[in-house]
Amino acid sequence: MRSVLVHVTKDSLLHALHHVLKAVSANNSAPILTGIHIQAYANELVCTASNASMTIQSRIPQDNSSMTVQRTGGIVVPARYFYEIIRKFNAGFIYFETKDHLILTITSGNSQIRLCGMNPADFPSLSNIEGSSVLKLKINNALLSSSIKQVATSASTSETRPVLTGVCLEYSNESLKFIATDGVRLASRTIHIENKANAETNAIIPGKNLYEAAKILDDEDHTTEVVVGRNQIRFTANNIQVQSALIEGVYPSIQNVIPKSYVSEVITETACLLNAIERATVLASESVVRIVATSHKLDLLSRTAEIGDVQDGVPLKEMNGEEFAISLNGKFLVDILRCVDSEYVRLRFTGKVSPFVIQPKDDPSSALFLITPIRTAN
Amino acid sequence: MRSVLVHVTKDSLLHALHHVLKAVSANNSAPILTGIHIQAYANELVCTASNASMTIQSRIPQDNSSMTVQRTGGIVVPARYFYEIIRKFNAGFIYFETKDHLILTITSGNSQIRLCGMNPADFPSLSNIEGSSVLKLKINNALLSSSIKQVATSASTSETRPVLTGVCLEYSNESLKFIATDGVRLASRTIHIENKANAETNAIIPGKNLYEAAKILDDEDHTTEVVVGRNQIRFTANNIQVQSALIEGVYPSIQNVIPKSYVSEVITETACLLNAIERATVLASESVVRIVATSHKLDLLSRTAEIGDVQDGVPLKEMNGEEFAISLNGKFLVDILRCVDSEYVRLRFTGKVSPFVIQPKDDPSSALFLITPIRTAN
Repeated sequence: MRSVLVHVTKDSLLHALHHVLKAVSANNSAPILTGIHIQAYANELVCTASNASMTIQSRIPQDNSSMTVQRTGGIVVPARYFYEIIRKFNAGFIYFETKDHLILTITSGNSQIRLCGMNPADFPSLSNIEGSSVLKLKINNALLSSSIKQVATSASTSETRPVLTGVCLEYSNESLKFIATDGVRLASRTIHIENKANAETNAIIPGKNLYEAAKILDDEDHTTEVVVGRNQIRFTANNIQVQSALIEGVYPSIQNVIPKSYVSEVITETACLLNAIERATVLASESVVRIVATSHKLDLLSRTAEIGDVQDGVPLKEMNGEEFAISLNGKFLVDILRCVDSEYVRLRFTGKVSPFVIQPKDDPSSALFLITPIRTAN
Repeated sequence: MRSVLVHVTKDSLLHALHHVLKAVSANNSAPILTGIHIQAYANELVCTASNASMTIQSRIPQDNSSMTVQRTGGIVVPARYFYEIIRKFNAGFIYFETKDHLILTITSGNSQIRLCGMNPADFPSLSNIEGSSVLKLKINNALLSSSIKQVATSASTSETRPVLTGVCLEYSNESLKFIATDGVRLASRTIHIENKANAETNAIIPGKNLYEAAKILDDEDHTTEVVVGRNQIRFTANNIQVQSALIEGVYPSIQNVIPKSYVSEVITETACLLNAIERATVLASESVVRIVATSHKLDLLSRTAEIGDVQDGVPLKEMNGEEFAISLNGKFLVDILRCVDSEYVRLRFTGKVSPFVIQPKDDPSSALFLITPIRTAN
């Protein structure tokens, strides 16, 4: 281990740490993983945090106005203390130096802080998935991030069937499909990939990790490189890298779940339906909202015994097929409508015990959401 | 009970409810107190919430553009459900009506909500403290609010000595003094009252209630009327009223606690000292920060075993008396410096076991803060 000497501005460092902190687990069984690995290379400063299933790495490139490395080397510092201290410095340059063995001296203005570090040799290194990679794609950040957000909330939070806590990525024929289901609801999003990829594949990524990746990518420009390896997936954007373990197992086929036909179809304004469902959900006992479609409007009904009831209405833009009534979990519908990203939505009633289908009106082939209805007395 | 009919805009109602909600206790033993009392008078709509020790009342005056009462009356509605529903309406007018006994019908746009209410006769009425009032004052809102915020954090949170959970208000000779202490730190603020009050008095107000009152008064203009009764205190500003029970008991005299003389006095920039103390507190084991004053600067030192240490420095503007060193709770000093409201602070060392004194430089007679030092080995 070499002794480090680095100058970096508070703002650059804080920006890098902010992302990386998401991978630090407060009560990690391995003490080394409560730390942030700081590596000073000739031309960049790299901050890395890792937990059992996800590693986040942020890079600050050498640049006289924000960061210069005068002596390369590395150290692992306690994440929370390090972040709190950096956060409380005044704006301007901060100097890092490892004078003594495993002690990082941080200087700025009149402040001098010494932090006991840990041996960087003990910090897990990012496994190289390039060699074993089965798929490599470039995706526009905004598109990737919105796709993830559309499906990730539908992943299961119960460990009963571990594969369902993940989001399944399927790639073939220049098309990438994201699928998540918890058994009651299902979300699927398909995007077209311009650049020619090298293989068909699928992978199951823990929903939580993917959601963190989406939040981080929101901040970054342009495109993300996605590399799928045998056991890992990696997202690389500008100066940030998120690597996640994959969930082993076989993801259930969703083809048989998606209704092939429908009884009725209605089209309505997304924002208007979202507001009405949100109001109905406030008084919905166990989140059950009843939707009744008549020729020109959707009626939404909910009630909680001894508290009250809601009756709301949303005008329809179009209706094809017969009138229908269905009960479903209003919170699930709220989650979908919040991220459907389309001015109008298409709702399909496929039968009383068969999934209710929600799709963006303009590009129905891109996204599909299903909610299993709730059987009620009426 | 009369049946109500009211038109009110979402924004006016939400503003009123927002304040009032602070007095609703989620797990109140009396079901009626989980509600908000809505009273429609000929010229105003009044919303009231109350818990065991505090009542908040918000008024919306009649005004064609925001509220009209068409039929007077009252009802108590479940606070959380009511607020959530109002919050989720689109902007514009909301209509209230009690058609059936104890059921409030809320209509807006296509939405119709029925909420089961409770009998307003069961809601505790605001006790009239005017008759038994011993003191009545008018105070500028900004001054009142900043005074409360300066002292309220020093009130005790332990119920061992109930009087210390309160803030003591002492009035005499056109001067109003706020005092709070938890036995380790003490804060006192004195303000001059222009209008002639009618008596000398003191009262102990629960610190939490007073702090809520300060936050609410921040939003209101001009002046607050303060009425102190035998068992209650009431703050009335523009359209809001906060009434709190007083704590019974005798507040300890603080005269003997305040040091009469000092060994050394230093003057330094508040913001600079605050930042340095905040940094030192990050690594301060049990929040202990050591302050060492030499001729031109204050050194701040802290450490946590096996994590690290901080050494920070703050330049002095003035120093009178000998050099000194003292250890104290850094978080207490942070609380004080955040609200001291003065560009420079005056720090007085009065001895190793005697309170450390913090005062605004420009107007030392207005505020006084004490922190009892911590005895350390060195």
